[in-house]
Amino acid sequence: MNHHPAGYSYGDTSLAPSPVSIDTLAQIQRSVLWSEDDSEALRRAGEILVPQTEQILDVWYGFVGANPHLVATFAGSDGQPDGVYLAAVRERFGRWIADLCARPFDADWLAYQEEIALRHHTRGKNRTDGVDSPSGHVPLSHLIALIVPITVTIRDFLGARGADPAEVDAMYHAWMKAVTLSVVLWTRPYNPELW
Amino acid sequence: MNHHPAGYSYGDTSLAPSPVSIDTLAQIQRSVLWSEDDSEALRRAGEILVPQTEQILDVWYGFVGANPHLVATFAGSDGQPDGVYLAAVRERFGRWIADLCARPFDADWLAYQEEIALRHHTRGKNRTDGVDSPSGHVPLSHLIALIVPITVTIRDFLGARGADPAEVDAMYHAWMKAVTLSVVLWTRPYNPELW
Repeated sequence: MNHHPAGYSYGDTSLAPSPVSIDTLAQIQRSVLWSEDDSEALRRAGEILVPQTEQILDVWYGFVGANPHLVATFAGSDGQPDGVYLAAVRERFGRWIADLCARPFDADWLAYQEEIALRHHTRGKNRTDGVDSPSGHVPLSHLIALIVPITVTIRDFLGARGADPAEVDAMYHAWMKAVTLSVVLWTRPYNPELW
Repeated sequence: MNHHPAGYSYGDTSLAPSPVSIDTLAQIQRSVLWSEDDSEALRRAGEILVPQTEQILDVWYGFVGANPHLVATFAGSDGQPDGVYLAAVRERFGRWIADLCARPFDADWLAYQEEIALRHHTRGKNRTDGVDSPSGHVPLSHLIALIVPITVTIRDFLGARGADPAEVDAMYHAWMKAVTLSVVLWTRPYNPELW
């Protein structure tokens, strides 16, 4: 994990602190029923998922690729999916799986969630990868809807090592909560005043 | 089901058509992996959930009541939770369970989702119930985060009749997708341009 994907800036001192406070994060965690058991289950999920990162990304990219309204986000200047852009995002997306499972939900984590948020919004989309894309933002509707596929596709991967159903279920729900928590934070730039 | 909760306007000819087209709805349904099997599982879920509506609402209201940042939405002019307001919303929330499970996702359904959306946003909050509340909107972060408790608390109710685990799982995931789909639609007024 020493290789850093291009554009990956987790923990960089150049990142602005998140406008979301630790207290607000704690409120959102309560809203998603977060508990210490979830923290532990998410760590265990990471141990199972990280070695399967490429296979997980194959499933997610297969899904995005099969849906023109989703793959449009990755259009290059000619309107066609930009392979270099797709590959750069894919590498960071893989690292995101590891980070979500293993990193503490602290100020560094919040700062990088805000950076990810900006990269979906008009304020930051395409900048990191220097893409000249007709897609200037990821629609808010897509960002929220994708909670479902990013959650439900993970269950088979959690069960791949033969963990018992109760353990798979604990990890699955910790993952669901953590994904939803992430998406909540990523939507902030879409309406900072009413967020 | 002939009694209409106060402020319930599903299907009213006075409701404006949703700005969301049936084609856009179909895209969102694809994003949440919606299938015909989910439609059928959701119908079956409704048969199990509707008779338990009051118990479900007890769980949800217990959760909201235990979280000051959530119950703040229901503050009256004195800043304290307004019992009349809570009760009015509760009755419509109960009807929402039945509607989500049984209604077709058509133009009438979309129009009422947009009305629900506006009732969370500054454009419509408090108006339906004539409340003088210091809470002028439901925060976007709460709206999205609540996908989790509204989803995970339903599983025990789905299993209450002794359905086999695979059947509970099918209904549970149809419910998860339908809740996420609803929340996606409810966020539209928070940023119509980037939605």
